[in-house]
Amino acid sequence: MHRPAINEIREASKRIAPYIHNTPVLRCQAVDNLFGREVFFKCENFQKSGAFKIRGAANAVFSLEEDEAEKGVATHSSGNHGAALALAARARGVGCYVVMPENAPGVKVKAVSGYGADISFCKPTLKDRERVLKEVADETGAVFIHPSNNSEVIAGQGTAALEFLEEVPDIDALITPVGGGGLLSGSAISTTAVSPETAVIAAEPKGADDAFRSFKSGKLIPSENPETIADGLLTSLSDLTFSIIRKYVSDIVTVSEENIVGAMRLIWERMKIVVEPSAAVALAAMLESNNSIPGKRVGIILSGGNVDLNALPFSGKD
Amino acid sequence: MHRPAINEIREASKRIAPYIHNTPVLRCQAVDNLFGREVFFKCENFQKSGAFKIRGAANAVFSLEEDEAEKGVATHSSGNHGAALALAARARGVGCYVVMPENAPGVKVKAVSGYGADISFCKPTLKDRERVLKEVADETGAVFIHPSNNSEVIAGQGTAALEFLEEVPDIDALITPVGGGGLLSGSAISTTAVSPETAVIAAEPKGADDAFRSFKSGKLIPSENPETIADGLLTSLSDLTFSIIRKYVSDIVTVSEENIVGAMRLIWERMKIVVEPSAAVALAAMLESNNSIPGKRVGIILSGGNVDLNALPFSGKD
Repeated sequence: MHRPAINEIREASKRIAPYIHNTPVLRCQAVDNLFGREVFFKCENFQKSGAFKIRGAANAVFSLEEDEAEKGVATHSSGNHGAALALAARARGVGCYVVMPENAPGVKVKAVSGYGADISFCKPTLKDRERVLKEVADETGAVFIHPSNNSEVIAGQGTAALEFLEEVPDIDALITPVGGGGLLSGSAISTTAVSPETAVIAAEPKGADDAFRSFKSGKLIPSENPETIADGLLTSLSDLTFSIIRKYVSDIVTVSEENIVGAMRLIWERMKIVVEPSAAVALAAMLESNNSIPGKRVGIILSGGNVDLNALPFSGKD
Repeated sequence: MHRPAINEIREASKRIAPYIHNTPVLRCQAVDNLFGREVFFKCENFQKSGAFKIRGAANAVFSLEEDEAEKGVATHSSGNHGAALALAARARGVGCYVVMPENAPGVKVKAVSGYGADISFCKPTLKDRERVLKEVADETGAVFIHPSNNSEVIAGQGTAALEFLEEVPDIDALITPVGGGGLLSGSAISTTAVSPETAVIAAEPKGADDAFRSFKSGKLIPSENPETIADGLLTSLSDLTFSIIRKYVSDIVTVSEENIVGAMRLIWERMKIVVEPSAAVALAAMLESNNSIPGKRVGIILSGGNVDLNALPFSGKD
C-alpha cells in the first residue's frame, strides 16, 4: 500500500476507460452570477453506478492478477462503493461479496444486488462489519477491496480530476467532498501533478468533520457518531488517504446541513440535475463562505446522484 | 395567423439563436434495455427558463416590428409560457405583462416576477383571465402573445425538433407531449419537412385528453375540468394547432397518471436529470404501451424541468 503517483493515475485512466464514462462538465449561469466567478461542475452523478466510485473499484478489480481475481472481491459498504465494486466485478466476470448493515436503505441493497453481488448482512457497527467481512473472505477467498485505504482505489478516483483538468485546464481552485478521502486524495495527486497552481480544497459536513479536525491537528482523528444528511461522507479518513491529504491539500472547510440542502436545491432547481447530498457538499462550501474559496475559476466535482426519491430533504422548505 | 412553413421555422432558429440553448441529446442504457430500442432524449429541461417555451416566446417577441414591440407584450399563463415571455421581453428590453390565476403556485409567480414581468392576478377561470388580460392590454397597448394560437410561437417551438433531427437524423418515431399543441404542431411541421419517414406521435394524460378526442373525432373538443399531475398539459388545443396536428401527426396516445409518475421516476433515478411531470408524459407512452410506438430508434422531447421540489409525487411510493 503506497501513495499512488501520477503515472499510476494515468495508467488507471487507460485501464478503466472501457468501464466508465468520461463525464460531462456543466456550467450554470445562475451559479456563476450568485458567486461572481466561473464555476465548472464535473458531473460524476452521470457516472456508471451513479457515482465516481466505479473509477476506483474498476481500477482495483482490473489491477488484480488472474489468480487473485478468480475467487472474487469483497467489501463492506452501506453505499456507493458496494454497488461500484459489484459492477466492476461483473464487468470482469468474477464474484463480488458485499457486507451491508442490516439497516441499509432498501434502495442501496437493491442497487448492489441488481449488479449481481452476493450480500451478507451485519449489525450496523464497524466491529460487526469487519467480523462478517472476515468470515466471508475466509470462506470464499475473495480479495478485500477497501473503499479508500487502497492504492489502486485512490489512483482510480484520481482519474476524475485528471479528465476535469484536461477539459478545463486553468482552474484556480478544485473543490471535492471528503468522507473516507479516496476522491480527495486521488484528486489532490492529479491536480498537484498536472496543474500545480490549482488549490485543492475539501468540503466536509460539520456533523462529520473528522477530516477537518485531522487536517488541522496533524493527527488522524476518527469520526465519532457522525450525523449528516450527506450519507456518503460518514466514514473516516484512512492512514493512506490522510497521508496524501496532509501533503497535497490546501484546505478543508466545513459546511452546515442547511447549506448542504441549500446547495442541493440550487443544483436541482437551476441546473436540473439530480445529485445526492454528499455531492452538494462541495458547492455548499461556497454558500457557507464564498470568500474561503480562492480564484476566479472554480472546479467542483459532483460526486454522485444516488438519492432515495422517497426521502428527499425538500418538503416544507423553500 | 397561418400554419408556419419549414422556412419560417428555419428563420426562427436563426432569430432566436442568441437567446436559447441548443440543448443536448442524452441517452440512457437502462431505458434502451427496458424498451428494447435506442431512445434519444432532447433535453429542453436544460433550456433557458427551464422549458422549450422560450423558443416560441423569443421568436414571437423578436418578430415584432419596433413600433409594435415598444409597448411591450402580454399573456395569461399559470406556467412556463409566462416565464418564457418575460425572459424574451427582457432580452429585447420591452415590458411584459402576465395575467396569472390567484391560485398559481408561488414558485411560478416567483419565476415570472424574477424575470421582471408585471403580474396581474385574476380569478382562476378562463373568462376572468381573458377579462383581466383585455384590461391590461387596453391600458398598456401591449401585444398579446398567445401560448399556442400564434404562428410565430409555433414556428419557435418547431426549432427543437429541427435541432434534434439535425443531430440524430434517422429517428423512426418522435414523441412529444401535447397540451395546447404548440410544441407538437411545430415539431410535426419540422419533422414532416426534414425527415418525412419519421412518425410524429403525441402523448397526452388520460385526465386531460382533449387532443386525443379531437384527433380521433376530427373536431376540436376543448378540455373540461382536466385533472393531471402534468400541469403543463391542462390547456386545450387551439384552432391553429389543431389544424396542423390533423394534417401532420401520426397518432395521439393517452397515458395514466401512474405511468407519468413512473416515467418521471425512471428519468430522475436512471438519467439523473430533473424533469417536470409534463415532460415525462412522452416516455410514459412507452411504459403505457411499448407496442404503440413504431420503430427501432425513438426520439423524445423532454419539454421542461420546472418542478416544485416541495411538492414531488414520489414520497411513499417505490
